[in-house]
Amino acid sequence: MGDPTRRPGSAPSVPGTDEFETIRRIAARVGAAPRGEVWIGDDAAIVRVGDALLAIAADAVVAGVHADLTLTSVADLGWKALAVNVSDLAAMGCVADRALVTVSASPGSDLDGLYDGLLAAAEAFGCAIVGGDLTTGPGLVVSVSVIGDGGGVPPPVLRSGARPGDEIWVTGPLGAAAAGLRALRAGHRDGPLVDAHARPTPRVGEGRAARAALASAMIDVSDGFSADLGHILDASGVGCELDGLAVADGATEDDALGGGEDYELVICCRPERELAARFRSAGLADPVLVGRCVADQERRLLAGAPLPLRGWVHHL
Amino acid sequence: MGDPTRRPGSAPSVPGTDEFETIRRIAARVGAAPRGEVWIGDDAAIVRVGDALLAIAADAVVAGVHADLTLTSVADLGWKALAVNVSDLAAMGCVADRALVTVSASPGSDLDGLYDGLLAAAEAFGCAIVGGDLTTGPGLVVSVSVIGDGGGVPPPVLRSGARPGDEIWVTGPLGAAAAGLRALRAGHRDGPLVDAHARPTPRVGEGRAARAALASAMIDVSDGFSADLGHILDASGVGCELDGLAVADGATEDDALGGGEDYELVICCRPERELAARFRSAGLADPVLVGRCVADQERRLLAGAPLPLRGWVHHL
Repeated sequence: MGDPTRRPGSAPSVPGTDEFETIRRIAARVGAAPRGEVWIGDDAAIVRVGDALLAIAADAVVAGVHADLTLTSVADLGWKALAVNVSDLAAMGCVADRALVTVSASPGSDLDGLYDGLLAAAEAFGCAIVGGDLTTGPGLVVSVSVIGDGGGVPPPVLRSGARPGDEIWVTGPLGAAAAGLRALRAGHRDGPLVDAHARPTPRVGEGRAARAALASAMIDVSDGFSADLGHILDASGVGCELDGLAVADGATEDDALGGGEDYELVICCRPERELAARFRSAGLADPVLVGRCVADQERRLLAGAPLPLRGWVHHL
Repeated sequence: MGDPTRRPGSAPSVPGTDEFETIRRIAARVGAAPRGEVWIGDDAAIVRVGDALLAIAADAVVAGVHADLTLTSVADLGWKALAVNVSDLAAMGCVADRALVTVSASPGSDLDGLYDGLLAAAEAFGCAIVGGDLTTGPGLVVSVSVIGDGGGVPPPVLRSGARPGDEIWVTGPLGAAAAGLRALRAGHRDGPLVDAHARPTPRVGEGRAARAALASAMIDVSDGFSADLGHILDASGVGCELDGLAVADGATEDDALGGGEDYELVICCRPERELAARFRSAGLADPVLVGRCVADQERRLLAGAPLPLRGWVHHL
């Protein structure tokens, strides 16, 4: 999860243990998934229930952490809570069909406003909210879980399949969400950058097209491009050589590298799979080729220089 | 969700709108489920994804609301967070196979202790934790969602199927969780009542047996027996005549009526289905017959007197 309330590129400042270390420790205790399932460590889990393979994911958004409610509305928070989960399934090439929502809120919270955004996103992404829970609690914590079909051929795309020689694509220019947050702080209240921050659009069609193209690895840009690409490189055991960045109009290179919350997809794919042609024939916007995977996993270059690591880590 | 931190039978005191009113308003906005699915308003949702029918549920537990961490451990909170969700599926006659967990925690929270309890419950109930999310946030909010098979014959048991003449059973005596909380407050630290409060056991086998017996309606006792039975009566459009209560050793009648968090099941079933005999042949503890359903839905009697309404409502 990215955090739009930090300054882009700033060092994490909360003491404690970082979330990835905690997740690694928990994953070790959970144990290995049975054959055919994917558990902790990817954008979504793939599980077998009865005869079915399902893609499932859950993410929480917290007022004051994932959204500053002095700048964006509680409806925007609701939209984001569903959108980030739909994006998690999109990053596997799967489509979220149904959602559950739990809300922990202090008395007097604007739950109708929250549901304005949740239901608008549910409508926009075709993912019905079918149940959940309301409870009293400190602040406002909205946890969403989604479920979609995880079966079929080709299988869902993991983070771990990138190979040397694969092209590295992004589904669109990056940094708009971070630039939008800066615009909000400067007093702007609308425009495409603000929309990118307040109402992100998961790339569901793009994820499906990448899966159909036999993409080797995929992730959504939530923590920041360099951190999220890093997750693919770590999981796949490869390095990268990037020719440049795809920077959104009005965004800086730092926004694009570490801003996060863009919810564009990073896709690794063999050149002969012709990803761009497939996107075009599916009526999708052109993806942007940013570089390629290399065998040396220590090698992570942007225009010949070391790729700066940017991105948010929750400290717990 | 019940709330063990209130005094049994006390009136809700938090200002705002009650959770059921909010849920009704949200349910109206969500719209009707397609044929064969069950959305908001039962213990779990039944959804069709691809060719599969799934049972899914999500509940959040909050430190200081659902558990007093001066009396019970953060591991107990983790256990409870998973157990209440497994219980939601049990109340449909379904079995939870996989779980996702999102945790919103302030820095320095004892996440390893939390996962001690979550993983112990996952092991005890055969429901693996396969993913989720960690984020910083106020307090400690643990949201769990579970998934299990929702297909097969007979179908899952809803709240809405009770008919006049159905017997009303509970899977065990009630009030132990409330009595256990009182024992903890009086300085006791172990014993069966404390265990009932700190480490509730969802009645998975009992739920399956009731479904196999073609039970007409079922719910788990989370808010309190009179409130939860009331949900069945409201959904089914029937009344009840109770001969008496099944009160746990060491509990009061008030604990049994309104204590909540017992996670026993309330089961409505035609007499000719011989629920008790089926439980016996399945090796389950004898259920307790407490009364029967009647046609007059205004009639709710306990030993000839009006059934007192007890139970917890979150105000939001």
